[in-house]
Amino acid sequence: MKRVLLRIAYEGTAYSGFQIQPNAPTIQEAVEEAILQVTGEKTEIMGGSRTDAGVHALWNVAVFDTNSPIPGEKFCYALNGHLPEDVRILASTEVPEDFHPRKCDSTKTYRYQIETGRIYNPLQKNFYHFTYQGLDVEAMQKAAKYIEGTHDFKSFCSAGAQVSTTVRTVYEVKVEKEEEKVLITVKGNGFLYNMVRIIAGTLMEVGYGRLAPEKLPEIIEAKNRKAAGPTAPAKGLILLQYDIDNMPGIL
Amino acid sequence: MKRVLLRIAYEGTAYSGFQIQPNAPTIQEAVEEAILQVTGEKTEIMGGSRTDAGVHALWNVAVFDTNSPIPGEKFCYALNGHLPEDVRILASTEVPEDFHPRKCDSTKTYRYQIETGRIYNPLQKNFYHFTYQGLDVEAMQKAAKYIEGTHDFKSFCSAGAQVSTTVRTVYEVKVEKEEEKVLITVKGNGFLYNMVRIIAGTLMEVGYGRLAPEKLPEIIEAKNRKAAGPTAPAKGLILLQYDIDNMPGIL
Repeated sequence: MKRVLLRIAYEGTAYSGFQIQPNAPTIQEAVEEAILQVTGEKTEIMGGSRTDAGVHALWNVAVFDTNSPIPGEKFCYALNGHLPEDVRILASTEVPEDFHPRKCDSTKTYRYQIETGRIYNPLQKNFYHFTYQGLDVEAMQKAAKYIEGTHDFKSFCSAGAQVSTTVRTVYEVKVEKEEEKVLITVKGNGFLYNMVRIIAGTLMEVGYGRLAPEKLPEIIEAKNRKAAGPTAPAKGLILLQYDIDNMPGIL
Repeated sequence: MKRVLLRIAYEGTAYSGFQIQPNAPTIQEAVEEAILQVTGEKTEIMGGSRTDAGVHALWNVAVFDTNSPIPGEKFCYALNGHLPEDVRILASTEVPEDFHPRKCDSTKTYRYQIETGRIYNPLQKNFYHFTYQGLDVEAMQKAAKYIEGTHDFKSFCSAGAQVSTTVRTVYEVKVEKEEEKVLITVKGNGFLYNMVRIIAGTLMEVGYGRLAPEKLPEIIEAKNRKAAGPTAPAKGLILLQYDIDNMPGIL
């Protein structure tokens, strides 16, 4: 028996999110089905981030246990032959048998992508939230600074989450403008349910001029979902990186 | 009556090409249907490049005649409200009534996109041809130089094309490597049926080491489709730009 860690990339458009559920296509189901095809073993993978329907990933992680003789680092090639073309295992490796991606220190980096041109580019339609209203990027950058640090992020958490604490540490919130695109990159040790999309939705309210950057501390302090802005649409969100803190470079 | 010129962008994945045909979705049909919705007029658009099934465009062009009071430059907004989300009119403007995009001097720029990494990025699956074999980019660059200039490109034309001459002028063939991507940019005054994809397929043969760059003059001289390499898959091809030579900046 060994435990194998996977780096999973996917376009989330056609999926009802990462986590398995009845009567809906999920990333978890696709990967478990590929493992069954390759090993003959029915297994349950333990995922890193449970991304929502329509959210993409360049680097999510999952582990599973197997008695297969296939070496850990070869599993990616074997599984890709049995996965739909919008899901790829970019790397795989053996890890200690007690390793769990959600029970270790890790750093997740998300990017929220916004297109602000007059008319959106149809080649990027699944990966950008489109708004034809202008965004004040400097104001968004000011507001972003207040989000950095260790806070109780209850105001940035959708109902339905079961967590023991809503305190998280956000290492960085970067807002950049590239031509007509606005990119929000958020890095932290963990994120609550919908947290990155609520951060993006709140920063967009600031960008539209409907919320002053200086209001952010009050919003955090309120510890009330209603204090923050709306949840930004899923398709603009990409999980860019999922680093295991004490295993740098493992994938 | 006025003639309106459109700049059309589309993800070609779900379409059987630009040109209308029975029982298959086409870009032409989608645009004509949108014009009907907006103006109430049944019309036939005259397209610039008749891109194949699966080929994308950031800048194809088409004209149509209308009695609508909508100003030429406002048509893009009106039409986008009636188009599927993978087709967008990026700009529109009125042109002289005798203007036809295929009966004027124009410069088309295409890009063929190849991903050569170990495992492809699923977020880009519709826009890159994937090959895990390495490509010798320097050899491809040498071969590309032979394609530039005015030649009879019969060797680079699929059967079925009805053209009075197979002589075309290719202004530039650029091969660039960006990390694990190889990008072939081809600019010319006109292209034969499948010509850019056959150029890409032939340059890939060179990149794989199966064809010497110095063989290119012989291939051109042969004036025989069998002399060139295979037609590269459609999904890697994007029509980047369609400039009307005597109307710079019109769109």
